[in-house]
Amino acid sequence: MSKNIAGEELMNKIVALCKRRGFIYQNSEIYGGMANTWDYGPMGVELKRNIKDIWWKNFVQERDDVVGLDSAIIMHPETWKASGHLSSFNDALIDCKTCKSRFRADHIIEDALNIDVEGKTEDEMTEIIHENKIKCPVCGSIDWTDARLFNLMFKTFQGVVEDSSSVVYLRPETAQGIFVNFKNIVDTTRVSLPFGIAQIGKAFRNEITPGNFIFRVREFEQMELEFFVKPGEDEEWFDYWRNYPMEWLINLGLSKDNLKYYDHPVEKLAHYSKGTTDILYKFPFGWEELWGIANRTDFDLNAHIERSGKKLTVFDHEKGEHIVPYVVEPSVGVDRLVLAFLVEAYTEDIVDGAERVYLNLKPELAPVKAAVFPLTKKEQLVEIARDIYNRLKTLFNTEYDDSGSIGKRYRRQDEIGTPYCITVDFDTIDDRKVTIRDRNTLEQDRIDIEKVRDYLLERI
Amino acid sequence: MSKNIAGEELMNKIVALCKRRGFIYQNSEIYGGMANTWDYGPMGVELKRNIKDIWWKNFVQERDDVVGLDSAIIMHPETWKASGHLSSFNDALIDCKTCKSRFRADHIIEDALNIDVEGKTEDEMTEIIHENKIKCPVCGSIDWTDARLFNLMFKTFQGVVEDSSSVVYLRPETAQGIFVNFKNIVDTTRVSLPFGIAQIGKAFRNEITPGNFIFRVREFEQMELEFFVKPGEDEEWFDYWRNYPMEWLINLGLSKDNLKYYDHPVEKLAHYSKGTTDILYKFPFGWEELWGIANRTDFDLNAHIERSGKKLTVFDHEKGEHIVPYVVEPSVGVDRLVLAFLVEAYTEDIVDGAERVYLNLKPELAPVKAAVFPLTKKEQLVEIARDIYNRLKTLFNTEYDDSGSIGKRYRRQDEIGTPYCITVDFDTIDDRKVTIRDRNTLEQDRIDIEKVRDYLLERI
Repeated sequence: MSKNIAGEELMNKIVALCKRRGFIYQNSEIYGGMANTWDYGPMGVELKRNIKDIWWKNFVQERDDVVGLDSAIIMHPETWKASGHLSSFNDALIDCKTCKSRFRADHIIEDALNIDVEGKTEDEMTEIIHENKIKCPVCGSIDWTDARLFNLMFKTFQGVVEDSSSVVYLRPETAQGIFVNFKNIVDTTRVSLPFGIAQIGKAFRNEITPGNFIFRVREFEQMELEFFVKPGEDEEWFDYWRNYPMEWLINLGLSKDNLKYYDHPVEKLAHYSKGTTDILYKFPFGWEELWGIANRTDFDLNAHIERSGKKLTVFDHEKGEHIVPYVVEPSVGVDRLVLAFLVEAYTEDIVDGAERVYLNLKPELAPVKAAVFPLTKKEQLVEIARDIYNRLKTLFNTEYDDSGSIGKRYRRQDEIGTPYCITVDFDTIDDRKVTIRDRNTLEQDRIDIEKVRDYLLERI
Repeated sequence: MSKNIAGEELMNKIVALCKRRGFIYQNSEIYGGMANTWDYGPMGVELKRNIKDIWWKNFVQERDDVVGLDSAIIMHPETWKASGHLSSFNDALIDCKTCKSRFRADHIIEDALNIDVEGKTEDEMTEIIHENKIKCPVCGSIDWTDARLFNLMFKTFQGVVEDSSSVVYLRPETAQGIFVNFKNIVDTTRVSLPFGIAQIGKAFRNEITPGNFIFRVREFEQMELEFFVKPGEDEEWFDYWRNYPMEWLINLGLSKDNLKYYDHPVEKLAHYSKGTTDILYKFPFGWEELWGIANRTDFDLNAHIERSGKKLTVFDHEKGEHIVPYVVEPSVGVDRLVLAFLVEAYTEDIVDGAERVYLNLKPELAPVKAAVFPLTKKEQLVEIARDIYNRLKTLFNTEYDDSGSIGKRYRRQDEIGTPYCITVDFDTIDDRKVTIRDRNTLEQDRIDIEKVRDYLLERI
């Protein structure tokens, strides 16, 4: 019977397990840690790789209407002028003159007055804060500057001179790398409408208030697909890409009850969007965006056409002419996907009166697919176990472990989500059979050594 | 018979093929391009993924003495004080006062005098340039500033204030992410000496003179392994990690004749190294470093111990005490590996009097493993070809192509290095057999449709 844990208690347990079992460490911990920056340890890197690999296989390789891309993080700064990021990818910040603390103006208002200020200008927000005499949450005084805009892009200098001519930015999204390469891909591959270009890569946002473990971080990894379609077919494809990720998430183990759609109201759509739907996941800290699907229309391509003077078009065989297509974008952050799968998988139950923790991850997501244990360090057992390990490790990520009690070894594999543990015991020497234990049911099958491979391949 | 092409001609042909077939595009080309920055197109991203996946499988997953890591690009700045990058990861630059051009001082001297100035200080180089009256390579005048040091790390600001307290750096190597996480990994996994921690990730160096296509770029991807060993066993392991990558490269298709070792003379070793060997590859622009293997001793861990005050040790079971291990580092850049494989694979031959270009890539590296063609767009042929494609695409990256002449389709697959092309022709309708063409030999096998899967799996 599994226990019911939620909210902060669940988050704390997940963060602790992530540290304890080598999934996620705080970055630069020996130097006091970088706030809200996290490193993936030996188990975390495998879980993240599995998510990315499955996405790539399903969204790119298995489809003949999607091709991949891997563009640079530091792009030409004109890109961000065209996309609007330089002028409008800002947060309005406001300072308390008394204690010098700096806050996001919208957060100050929302927390104090419980009203929604989306779309308000920095001047409007300044007015609201001043008029309502909102107090500084840190020192309590009412002594504000005006709100000012701060761009969220990380800025750096390329070349040896640090002046405005050498300023470049770390990309705040991978999408623009796709739009800027659109023409090259149309010209050098066999794509024809409708088709998509997909990319996995890091993006950087100088967020003022990151948090919730790996949910909102300044350095994160995106998996983005820009799917180009004929204008007029965009709404149909928007529906398609609204459904497909939902099914994908459920197939990989997220429960339907923890997922829902949020359709952005028309009046709150981003400047580039004709329609946006978020797939929300019920994190322990509330319903939050997991996947964003946007009908970006021809906004981005037109912006780059205007700025670059290049013809970013594709041939429409029906019309017999070159057109600027519309684009539908399903975009997801890898880090928050990792977190969602961890939240969903975390389980506590009682086995024979003792508490047990395990990650109920689908085998394809599990960092380790199978672990092989000799019951003791007796040479014959070790030899057989090593032999099984050697045969499995080329097929999928397998561990060999002969240290500590068998119970301790099971506990570790349960906590990292290994679906199958194979134990070589004294009977194995005679009957050439091993015990395979199922992580979830704890049922044990006694299987011929020669059949272990197929037994596992069938189930993984 | 394959033709002999080398040097600049070969490089030009490779760069052209990379653009033409969607391997590598210039970054932000529609904005005039970012100098020396490159994006991987649909074929390039698959080739790069294959290289990284095989490395990860061979260097991490199949070994029980290596675990993986994925640490953040932006780390705590103390990291770079400890590692020495902040104080000594510099190039000495010198300006021509007449034409305002800026150069690396060592390059100016080496080009003019053909002497090696490795290890010389900026003052010594200033003196050499002034004394020898070296001319400016751009304008010809002899009117130099003094040489000054420039740090090669990209600097940015985290948070909302741009002052010294918020300065952070893009990592110039992935290695330090491993050292900083050393203790966490020792404490939370089952590693014991000797063991390695491996990482694949982006690194950034503000190089003054990048170049040679993707060989030297400012933003690049590293595959690094830090292999921790007992002091005293370091030289044995250094030999091991000197040999293993060489065998790996040869197994993946680089020819022995194009590879050689370069052992750094003791007097020229980096400050952290007891011994360094480079594996050089014969690029069209000369023998250049592909893989660096360094015996870094306990330099890095000790530097971090000193700076952080933390005990970065591991238990030595023989000695019965905690020790600071030595570390051997085989480190390779993914981008230059991609280039080496492209150089090695590029082949021109004459087939039936016509010129042909193909990439002789090993099947495991090829972006596309198999392509399926119906001879014409006749419905029956298309249906059979689609069916074969659908069965293969879940096993490995497969393409379906029914556009243009069969010769044009072969040409494209040859140029992207697809080892096998499967053609469905009119006879197929009756005999349920297809033709499988081998990229290199051009031999064609006529195979039962039901046997295509196994035929390919055997060879890939």
